[in-house]
Amino acid sequence: MKRTHHNGTLRMEHVGQRVELVGWVSKRRNFGSIVFIDLRDRSGLVQLVINQEEFPRVDKIRSEYVLSISGIVNERKDKNPKLPTGDVEIVVDGLEIINEAQQTPMIIADETDALEDTRLKYRYLDLRRPIMQDRLIKRSKITGQMRRTLEDLGFLEIETPMLTKSTPEGAREYLVPSRVHKGEFYALAQSPQIFKQLLMIGGLERYYQIARCFRDEDLRADRQLDFTQVDIEASFLSQDEFMAIIEQVASDVMVHVLGHEKPEFPRISFYDALNVYGSDKPDLRFELHLSDVNGVFKDSEFKVFQDTLTQGGALRALVLSGNHADTITRKVSDKYTDLVKKNGMKGLVVLKAQQDTLSGSAAKFLSETEIKALYQTLNLQENDVLFIGSGEWEQTCTAMGALRLQLAKDFDLIPENTFKYAWIVDFPMFELGEEGEIIARHHPFTSPKREDIELLDSDPLKVTAQAYDLSLNGFEVAGGSMRIYDQTLQAKMFNIIGFSNEDIESRFGFFVDAFKYGTPPHGGIAFGLDRYAMALTESDSIRDVIAFPKNASARCPLTNAPAPATEKQLKELHIEIED
Amino acid sequence: MKRTHHNGTLRMEHVGQRVELVGWVSKRRNFGSIVFIDLRDRSGLVQLVINQEEFPRVDKIRSEYVLSISGIVNERKDKNPKLPTGDVEIVVDGLEIINEAQQTPMIIADETDALEDTRLKYRYLDLRRPIMQDRLIKRSKITGQMRRTLEDLGFLEIETPMLTKSTPEGAREYLVPSRVHKGEFYALAQSPQIFKQLLMIGGLERYYQIARCFRDEDLRADRQLDFTQVDIEASFLSQDEFMAIIEQVASDVMVHVLGHEKPEFPRISFYDALNVYGSDKPDLRFELHLSDVNGVFKDSEFKVFQDTLTQGGALRALVLSGNHADTITRKVSDKYTDLVKKNGMKGLVVLKAQQDTLSGSAAKFLSETEIKALYQTLNLQENDVLFIGSGEWEQTCTAMGALRLQLAKDFDLIPENTFKYAWIVDFPMFELGEEGEIIARHHPFTSPKREDIELLDSDPLKVTAQAYDLSLNGFEVAGGSMRIYDQTLQAKMFNIIGFSNEDIESRFGFFVDAFKYGTPPHGGIAFGLDRYAMALTESDSIRDVIAFPKNASARCPLTNAPAPATEKQLKELHIEIED
Repeated sequence: MKRTHHNGTLRMEHVGQRVELVGWVSKRRNFGSIVFIDLRDRSGLVQLVINQEEFPRVDKIRSEYVLSISGIVNERKDKNPKLPTGDVEIVVDGLEIINEAQQTPMIIADETDALEDTRLKYRYLDLRRPIMQDRLIKRSKITGQMRRTLEDLGFLEIETPMLTKSTPEGAREYLVPSRVHKGEFYALAQSPQIFKQLLMIGGLERYYQIARCFRDEDLRADRQLDFTQVDIEASFLSQDEFMAIIEQVASDVMVHVLGHEKPEFPRISFYDALNVYGSDKPDLRFELHLSDVNGVFKDSEFKVFQDTLTQGGALRALVLSGNHADTITRKVSDKYTDLVKKNGMKGLVVLKAQQDTLSGSAAKFLSETEIKALYQTLNLQENDVLFIGSGEWEQTCTAMGALRLQLAKDFDLIPENTFKYAWIVDFPMFELGEEGEIIARHHPFTSPKREDIELLDSDPLKVTAQAYDLSLNGFEVAGGSMRIYDQTLQAKMFNIIGFSNEDIESRFGFFVDAFKYGTPPHGGIAFGLDRYAMALTESDSIRDVIAFPKNASARCPLTNAPAPATEKQLKELHIEIED
Repeated sequence: MKRTHHNGTLRMEHVGQRVELVGWVSKRRNFGSIVFIDLRDRSGLVQLVINQEEFPRVDKIRSEYVLSISGIVNERKDKNPKLPTGDVEIVVDGLEIINEAQQTPMIIADETDALEDTRLKYRYLDLRRPIMQDRLIKRSKITGQMRRTLEDLGFLEIETPMLTKSTPEGAREYLVPSRVHKGEFYALAQSPQIFKQLLMIGGLERYYQIARCFRDEDLRADRQLDFTQVDIEASFLSQDEFMAIIEQVASDVMVHVLGHEKPEFPRISFYDALNVYGSDKPDLRFELHLSDVNGVFKDSEFKVFQDTLTQGGALRALVLSGNHADTITRKVSDKYTDLVKKNGMKGLVVLKAQQDTLSGSAAKFLSETEIKALYQTLNLQENDVLFIGSGEWEQTCTAMGALRLQLAKDFDLIPENTFKYAWIVDFPMFELGEEGEIIARHHPFTSPKREDIELLDSDPLKVTAQAYDLSLNGFEVAGGSMRIYDQTLQAKMFNIIGFSNEDIESRFGFFVDAFKYGTPPHGGIAFGLDRYAMALTESDSIRDVIAFPKNASARCPLTNAPAPATEKQLKELHIEIED
C-alpha cells in the first residue's frame, strides 16, 4: 500500500504520470467489461478505469470498499466540469482490496435524507460525507489560525482545571463524585473564568486556551452539554487595545482561512443595537432597520399606542419593500403576529401602503396626519408592507428584531458567503431577575465604567459595564469584559447582586483573597468556538461542526451514553440512586 | 497606563530612550533619598531609580505592588552581570501605583522553601516566580510547535467527547450523573482512543488533538486526576512512515523550542531495553549498562544463582566504576538492597574489585574461575563495585534498572541539558494479569505483527505487537500502536483477553460494528504532555508544568475542591450519599 498523490488533487498536469492512490469506493458503474469507480479520499475523488478481464476481482467491489491502486493518469474523453478532477481518469494497472464493506445504512453523499439520530448513530459514516469533512477541516483551520495569531501576539496557551469547584457564573454544573473523599464532588468547569483571572494575578500577562466547558442547562436545539471556548485574557491593556487584538484574531481568520477581505468591526451600543436591529447580536448582512415611530404617534387616538407611550414604551416599525404586499395575506400576517407574540408582544399592526394611504385592520385608528407622517418618515413606496410593534422598550425591540430576521429569511434578503461582524458595547451592568432582584448581565467580575462607579450605590440599573460582545451574522460569537481589579469594588459588586459575605467566603473566598496581593488591570473574552465555526461554515446547526455531538435529549446515539453504572462503581463512589 | 517595552528586554542599546513600563515590585532598597526598585514583568526585571523627594509616594510602595512608570534608560555604574538587564537602570520621571499588595505568604523568587500545599493554595503567587513562568512558557511553546508540525503535515485538530461511555482501556473512570436521565451516568473520557479510531473509519485520515483525559486511579506522586495527551492518529501509513512523522514532531520541538541539535531516535526492542537498561523507558543519558552474567555462573555452586538458572531466570550485573568502593559502605549497600527488594528481588550481591579479587559477603560462594571470568567479561578495574541481581528475567532486569538509575543519581552520572530519545519496539502483545489471566499489554486495539497472527491461537504470550513507545531521559513520553482494522481479528483479540460476546456487545458493540463498513489501515500515538513537558523542562514533578494541579490527595488547596454538594443538587441528580 503506497500513496503518491491525493485523489482530489489530480489535474491535466498529471496526465501520463503513474500514480498510487488509496481511498474508498464512492460509486461504481459497469460499461461492458470496463468498470468505472470513483475513489474518494479526504481531498476529493477521482475516476478509476478498470478492465474487468484484467482484474476479475473488481466484480466483488462494492461501495465503501477500501482500495489501494496504481495506474496511469489519462485525459478523459467525457470531461466532467462539475468535478475538480473531472478532466482526468486513472487507468488502473494494479489493484488491492484493503478492506471490504457491508452496505451502509446511509448514503455517503453531500445531500442526505437520513434522520439526525441515524446520522449520529453512524457518525463515522456521516463524517465520510465530503460536506461534513469540509466543515471539520475548516473548523480545524479556524482554530489553527486563531492560535497562530494569538501566539504571535505573545499569548501563552495554558490549561486550567476541569475538575474543580462551583463557580459563581450561575449555570447549573455537572458534578463528579469523589471516590477518595466520600460525599464530596468536583464540579466540571463551566468556564476557565476564575482561573484565567488568577493567571493574570499570577503575572502571566497574556493567556489563551481552547477550553472545553460544561453546563448542565436545559437543552435547546443549538446547545450541547459541553462546548468549546477560545478563552483569552490579557493584563495591562485598555478596552480599546484589547478589542484591537481580537479584531486581529477574527480578521486573520477571514483573510487566511476564508480568503475574504479584512472585515470591518463597527461598534454599536447595546441601546442602538436593540433600537435599530432589535437584537444585541444584530445580523448586519441586510438592512431592514427598525424605525422609531414614537414621534409619529405622540397624539395618537389608537389606545394601544397611547398606552404604550404613556407607560414610556416604544413604537417600532419595519418596512418590507419590494412589492410584497400581495404576498402578505391574512395567513402570512397571522404567522408574523404569532412570532412577535412568542417574543412577548401582545399583537402586531400590519399595514399596506397602497394608493397613498394605508390599508389593514388597524388603519382605521390612524389619522390622516399620522399616515402622511409615516409615508414621510419611512419613505413608503406603493405596495410596501409596514409592521408596527408596541410595548415595553426592550421587549418590543427584541420581538420586532425576531420579525426582522424572519422577513429576511422569507424574502431572501440574506446574501450567501457574506460575513458581517459588529462589536456590541455599553451594556447595562445589571438587569432585573425573574423575581425583581438585581443580577449581573455579564458576570460579577465585569468592571463598570469608571464614570459610573458612583451610580453603583444610587442607581445600579443605570450603570454601564465595560463589556463587549462580538457578533457575526446574527450570532454572538464572543463575549468579554474588562474585569474588576480592585478588591473593594469586587466586594461591592457581590453585595449588589445579593451575595452575602458568607456566600462569598464559602463559594470563592480564595478568589477574593487573591486580589489582595497586587492584581493587574486585566480583561478578556471568550469565543464560543462551536457557534463561531457554525457561522463561518454557514451551517444550520452546531452539531454540523462537532465530530461527535449529543442529540437534543443529551444522548449520544453512537455510544449510547449516558448508561447505568454498576453496583460496584456506585459503591466505590459512595452514592446510591434515589428511589 | 502605557507600555512601550517589556522590562526584561532592556539593554545598552536602549540607553537614552524614554520608556513606559508596568509590572510588579520585586524588591526595593533605600539609599539615602534614592529608592531602587526591581520592577518585574513576564519578560524579567529591571532596576528603577526613584528620587523620593520627587515622588514622596514611593515611600508607601511594598513588594508586589503593581506600578506603571515612565523614565529614561540610563547606563548603570555598578553593572550586575547576573541580570540580563544588569547594564541599565531606569531613572523614573513618572510613577503611578496601579494596585497595592499585602505582604505575601510566600517569597516570590526562583528558590522557595514554601511547602507544596502553600504553593498550591497561593498558586497565583507561586506562578509569579520566574522559574514557574519559564516552565509554563516553555510548555506553551512545546505544544505550539507540535501543533504547527502536525498541521503542516496535514493533521486536523478535531475534538472528541469528554462526556461519554465507559471504554475498555481498563482504568477506573470518573462518572457524571445525568440529571435528565435518572440513574444513568456519563463517563469522563479516559482517552479519545475509540473516537480517534472512528475518525479514521470516518475518512478523516489524519487527526490530532490536545486532549484532557480523566482516570480515577490511585494517586502517585506524579499522577493527576486529569492529564493532557497530544493524541495523534493516521490512516494509510506503515509503522515506519508513522514513526518518521512522530520523529519530525519531536525533532522540531528540540530544534525550534529548545535550540538543540536534531536528536537521534534509536530503536531498541523491548527485550534489549530490559536486558541492557532494565527498563522499557531507558534513560540513555548515561552508560552503566546491565550485563548478562548467566554464562559466567553456569556451573555455579552458589545456590541462589543455581536456582535462578535452573528456573530459566536471569543474572544481571551492574559495575560502578570510578573508584567508589569506599563510598559503598555496609549502610549504602543495604540501601541499594532495599531498593531492589522493593522492586521484587529477594536480595542483591554486592562485591568490590580489589587486588584482582572480589570481596563482599557473597564472595565466598564464587569460584576462582568465576571471579576471573567476571573480571574479564566486565572489564573490572581496581575499586570498581559490582552488583549482581538474580531471579525471574523481567523482574530482575527491572529491579537492576531501578538500581542503575539510583546509582546514576547518587554518583552524578546524568548530564544536564541533555535529551536522549529512544523508540522501544517489539513489545509482547499480552502479559499475565494478577490472577494469571491473559491481558493486553497496550490495549486490545493494537495489531499483532502480521507474521505472529498464527501464534494468537497456539501461543498468544509469544505474539509481538505493532506497538511503539517513545522514551526520553527515562520517561515514557509517548506510546502508540498500529491498530487492528479487520473485524474478525478484533473479535479474536477480545476473546483472548476474556471478553465474552456479551461484554463486547454491551461495552463497545458500536465500535466493533463500525469496522464492517470499510475501515482503513491506521495507527497512532499519544504523548503524555505533562510528562513530556516535565522532561523537557527538567522539572522534578509534573505539578511544576501544570498551572493549577491537584495535590497528592486529589484536592485543590486553592479552591478546596472537591466539596460537599447541596441537597438540592443531589436531588436534581437523583442520587444520595451512601450512609
